[in-house]
Amino acid sequence: MYKLVLIRHGESTWNLENRFTGWTDVDLTPTGVEQAKQAGRLLKQEGYEFDLAYTSVLKRAIHTLWHALDELDRQWLPTVKDWRLNERHYGALQGLNKAETAKQYGDDQVLVWRRSYDTPPPALEASDPRSERGDRRYAGLAAADVPLTECLKDTVARVLPFWNEQIAPTIRSGKRVVIAAHGNSIRALIKYLDRISDDDIVGVNVPNGIPLVYELDAELKPIRSYYLGDAEAAAKAAAAVASQGKSA
Amino acid sequence: MYKLVLIRHGESTWNLENRFTGWTDVDLTPTGVEQAKQAGRLLKQEGYEFDLAYTSVLKRAIHTLWHALDELDRQWLPTVKDWRLNERHYGALQGLNKAETAKQYGDDQVLVWRRSYDTPPPALEASDPRSERGDRRYAGLAAADVPLTECLKDTVARVLPFWNEQIAPTIRSGKRVVIAAHGNSIRALIKYLDRISDDDIVGVNVPNGIPLVYELDAELKPIRSYYLGDAEAAAKAAAAVASQGKSA
Repeated sequence: MYKLVLIRHGESTWNLENRFTGWTDVDLTPTGVEQAKQAGRLLKQEGYEFDLAYTSVLKRAIHTLWHALDELDRQWLPTVKDWRLNERHYGALQGLNKAETAKQYGDDQVLVWRRSYDTPPPALEASDPRSERGDRRYAGLAAADVPLTECLKDTVARVLPFWNEQIAPTIRSGKRVVIAAHGNSIRALIKYLDRISDDDIVGVNVPNGIPLVYELDAELKPIRSYYLGDAEAAAKAAAAVASQGKSA
Repeated sequence: MYKLVLIRHGESTWNLENRFTGWTDVDLTPTGVEQAKQAGRLLKQEGYEFDLAYTSVLKRAIHTLWHALDELDRQWLPTVKDWRLNERHYGALQGLNKAETAKQYGDDQVLVWRRSYDTPPPALEASDPRSERGDRRYAGLAAADVPLTECLKDTVARVLPFWNEQIAPTIRSGKRVVIAAHGNSIRALIKYLDRISDDDIVGVNVPNGIPLVYELDAELKPIRSYYLGDAEAAAKAAAAVASQGKSA
């Protein structure tokens, strides 16, 4: 049996400001730092050990991992940072306030952009200063592979090859893996592992900074999964995520 | 022409307490954190960009890199952590106060242990609780490859293969490299690059947290090398390193 631990980054400055973030590289708030440390302390209390860490190329996930590794006293853990674990790209909504966007376009339209499986938000122009196409960290990618918007389906389509090519073989080799990532890249993994339908995945919310443990069989099929620590706190945090982006 | 940047970690708690550290995994002091950030700020001011970072598996070097990457806003930089960049193993002296050790054994004996090229300090017993042989981060090594003491010659003997097999090919491929490491693993690189004799290398001191830049030709032979920032400050810091371990 294998164990896999997923951690959504702690609260970011734009979580706090209720803005659509996507690939914008905002940092953790002090609360987010504390959540990340608490994730590390929980893992340490429960005796978790890891052989390899994965994270995105966005600092709110990287810092979450670093703080957790500090609490675990495992700063030396080999770490792979890959853009395919990035948050869903939020297109032209990146930077906009969620409640104001909801007032302007209506709760229903924003809910579609936030929660539809296959309807992406309006795309960024490639020339928009918010576009990541000039960003050096994506220089290894063909320009056309740097998204201008994504629906969750698009996110799944780039997370899963990374899972299949890199993460799954690592787990099968016996290495214990922790992944510090984002609401939607983690949702993509949950959808795949738990075989959740396109309709149902949009109702699954991942709280910030609470380790989600998957126990996997030899075929990497889930035996069970659970959040570490206080179950009620995890449920509350997930509900808070779900209520963002309402106008009221 | 290639550029390579070497950074010795900022001041550690045992630098401050004047204790022999070696492979003991002590952290930075607040001064050391500030030195690491200052290294990052200097690199940023001068417009340095990197494609790959190397560091050891010891947190004083890893944290130095992390703080520098934070100042550079390049947290996403791919990073390789390898034990072959660790500090020289200090054997049975690890944990002992340098001045007290000098009082007990005499300045001359301590100077031999600190500065002789090929005389290692007394070895740790493998069963000594200070030995790293049970440490999970070295689990990939044969037990006999985890040192119980090292002279600088031994450190050179494990740093250079890593240079030749990994770092040099990376630089030749055009990737811009920064290395956050330790006094003696950096000294091993300086000895090799500048073709310094066994006798002379022991007089070379590397200050904490000041980026050392090598400009290298196509054969990776140094064209010139220099510390970034205030040259006088760098010389002073190097002199301070040299005077440690005197009894008076």
